[in-house]
Amino acid sequence: MSEQMGITTKKENFSEWFSEVCFKCNLIDLRYNVQGFVVHRPWAMKIIKKMYSLFEKELEKTGHEPVLFPVVIPEKNFIKEAEHVEEFAPEVFWITEAGDKKLEEKLALRPTSETAMYQMYSLWIRSYKDLPFKRYQSVSVFRNEKTTKPFLRGREFLWIEAHDAFATEKEIMKQINEDMIITKKIVEDHLGLPIMFFKRPQWDKFAGAVETYAADILMPDGKVNQISSTHNLGNNFSKVFDITFLDSKGEKKYAWQTCYGPGIWRMMAALIAVHGDDKGLILPFELAPIQVIIIPIKDSALKKCESIKKELEKNCIRVEIDKRDETPGWKFNDWEMKGVPIRIEIGPQEIKEKTLTLARRDNGKKYKIKEKNLIKTLKKIEKEILDNLKNKATIFLKNNIHNAKSRKEVIDIIKKGGYARINFCGREVCAKDMQNVTQGGKVRGTRADKKELATGKCAWCGGLGKEVVYVAKQY
Amino acid sequence: MSEQMGITTKKENFSEWFSEVCFKCNLIDLRYNVQGFVVHRPWAMKIIKKMYSLFEKELEKTGHEPVLFPVVIPEKNFIKEAEHVEEFAPEVFWITEAGDKKLEEKLALRPTSETAMYQMYSLWIRSYKDLPFKRYQSVSVFRNEKTTKPFLRGREFLWIEAHDAFATEKEIMKQINEDMIITKKIVEDHLGLPIMFFKRPQWDKFAGAVETYAADILMPDGKVNQISSTHNLGNNFSKVFDITFLDSKGEKKYAWQTCYGPGIWRMMAALIAVHGDDKGLILPFELAPIQVIIIPIKDSALKKCESIKKELEKNCIRVEIDKRDETPGWKFNDWEMKGVPIRIEIGPQEIKEKTLTLARRDNGKKYKIKEKNLIKTLKKIEKEILDNLKNKATIFLKNNIHNAKSRKEVIDIIKKGGYARINFCGREVCAKDMQNVTQGGKVRGTRADKKELATGKCAWCGGLGKEVVYVAKQY
Repeated sequence: MSEQMGITTKKENFSEWFSEVCFKCNLIDLRYNVQGFVVHRPWAMKIIKKMYSLFEKELEKTGHEPVLFPVVIPEKNFIKEAEHVEEFAPEVFWITEAGDKKLEEKLALRPTSETAMYQMYSLWIRSYKDLPFKRYQSVSVFRNEKTTKPFLRGREFLWIEAHDAFATEKEIMKQINEDMIITKKIVEDHLGLPIMFFKRPQWDKFAGAVETYAADILMPDGKVNQISSTHNLGNNFSKVFDITFLDSKGEKKYAWQTCYGPGIWRMMAALIAVHGDDKGLILPFELAPIQVIIIPIKDSALKKCESIKKELEKNCIRVEIDKRDETPGWKFNDWEMKGVPIRIEIGPQEIKEKTLTLARRDNGKKYKIKEKNLIKTLKKIEKEILDNLKNKATIFLKNNIHNAKSRKEVIDIIKKGGYARINFCGREVCAKDMQNVTQGGKVRGTRADKKELATGKCAWCGGLGKEVVYVAKQY
Repeated sequence: MSEQMGITTKKENFSEWFSEVCFKCNLIDLRYNVQGFVVHRPWAMKIIKKMYSLFEKELEKTGHEPVLFPVVIPEKNFIKEAEHVEEFAPEVFWITEAGDKKLEEKLALRPTSETAMYQMYSLWIRSYKDLPFKRYQSVSVFRNEKTTKPFLRGREFLWIEAHDAFATEKEIMKQINEDMIITKKIVEDHLGLPIMFFKRPQWDKFAGAVETYAADILMPDGKVNQISSTHNLGNNFSKVFDITFLDSKGEKKYAWQTCYGPGIWRMMAALIAVHGDDKGLILPFELAPIQVIIIPIKDSALKKCESIKKELEKNCIRVEIDKRDETPGWKFNDWEMKGVPIRIEIGPQEIKEKTLTLARRDNGKKYKIKEKNLIKTLKKIEKEILDNLKNKATIFLKNNIHNAKSRKEVIDIIKKGGYARINFCGREVCAKDMQNVTQGGKVRGTRADKKELATGKCAWCGGLGKEVVYVAKQY
């Protein structure tokens, strides 16, 4: 069966490789009969559940509490914030009937939940003592996107949305920083994916927001993937949804708000794309649904396989023995494709010598170790795998940020892929022109995690350089 | 504020009490502006997440793998199984528009996922080697119910659905038994709620199924709450959705199927209703979002409170210190209302004596213990709480099952509430008459967890008694 022949496309043909990995590793099935809606299969769901739990833990540590709002939003809520409705209305799915009856009011399937949540915030927040007020939900959202791609753009996709309200404006920037720290901690230190934070240009902010901060990951094809964002909502929405509180002097004030959206789908895309190779997925130890796969080289090794499995389970390691009726070589390939970080081979020789043969997925390295050193070795390798994946990805990112001083340089870099780092005049008209001429090179914004000052004229228009921005094609 | 005055309704006025507990304990907010759709608040979400994780763990142990199917189901899938469409069509929400355009085909918001999943099962299942094939998803489902009640009946409610396929018919009953064991293990041994399993009468089975098995919990008002069900689908759906496999002889066969639906919402309703009392919620230690609340009796106790908190956290106990600017008595009431299992009071006397004062929510018992015995004592109390809650609930259930030998006895029992246990003729017409006359007394079915033989004539019609059934009003 072709499904069992491993990945046949080279990663350099990125788009086809990505689709093949999504299908053959049992991540996604695109054959569901509603266009743009996908089926999430077990290997993806297990990784996704771990990502959710990493974020939920950090969000709860920083004072966020879980909620779940209805998936439906009445039309009247939706039209309250003018910019917001303009942006989202074209892609909203509408429920208009129940049974054989027309509904009195159309219901939107949530594309994002500001307009669902904030009417309730208005009821819940009364006094400065209720603030800060921090809530999150882990949900699917729905947007009728024209083109779709697994984990990158879908009509139903998975994320977390955290909506926070504060008594003072200055807490907004504090929260944005907290969100960036959470993102960095999980995405870099657990997923091994280096990110850059940008303050988006005014013309590219979230609909209804004062400003938008976002995290980008560079994908192997040189396009960038926005994996999360935090919006400074100011009191735009609190004025529209009447979220007020009495301050300590008894005066009525509008709350200050932020919302933070870690894109679980987008991170999954980055995890697959950045770490994977020609053979398929490469997963960090912590995220892998199966962390160690044991392959019996001969049937006579089964008993020892079982005892090793038990020992690993005692140490909370997710482990399986592959007892399928296939050759060891076939099994090696299958688990390499699926990205299982460690393979243990057990045959007659290992039994005789009381040793184990370990193989790492990330770099192919093999180890012959004494049985009694197994747990100690795994602990060490677990860290080495993450470091190796993160280092490789960091080098890739570094190698694909290029300073550009002229239109020609910008055009060449965007054509090749990666970031063009330029001095920029800060004008929307210049950004739009650049995007047109480069066929998609977008100003991602100024660095939010680092102070960078303009040192020359705008690389595009030659006007006064006001800031340093990064330009790249985006997903 | 009335919200801080605790529960004002006695539990004997069950319906009002239940609503008040749901609102005041921050479980549910009904003020969302789409009727029948509720907002889940943090105290509920934290308990619900624990319930989900208990079930997901057991399902994965028994070979189920997680999936996530789209929330939308195209109309053409929906109309494939005749009984199924007849049952669900009247309450389906339909998406008919996206942006300002009409969709080419209407999309149902999933009321249950058979018709979404089984077309994919048809693609995934090919050979007897693919079987058994067991998948589950943890999701919201949507039904346009006429009347709604938090956690009992909603237009959006939370459950798990596990859909299994087998090579042989005899595996169906094995799976139904496995599902019953999972339900019993979690609901009785973790939630402390005694259940009875029934095989539902033919006229009350799931639309499209061969037979339905279900678990009922008796609620304090004498009505029963179906908290889960498993359906024997035979090969009804596999014929409609073409789920076939080649058996070991190379012959094409239709798969045999079951689906199992643990109702997370329904269990939440039972947890609140069965264990709670006039003061509010009573939560088992394992399910409580906060397991131990520490109340400083004087400010001077804060330091010791912090060190006790640290010790508890080291032992993986969920603990908070209530530092709010309120009296200890006010705090006692507030946490009792929320059902926190253990309160620790620390004041000058406790500091002097190196002791702690513990109070149990479930029975009000107080303990004065030595500080060093804290963890040991908690471990012991944790088990005692669960045993106490389960015993109480079991006695309540026992006391509300009454043998009835005549129409009059059936009518009296159903009027009073609880189960009437009767010899029954097995005829639908008799059951319908009984339901009409008793104003809602429904035949729940024969026991699936216990063999019971009829010992006399049908208590309702006087005809031949063929089986022993239980009759009760239902939610």
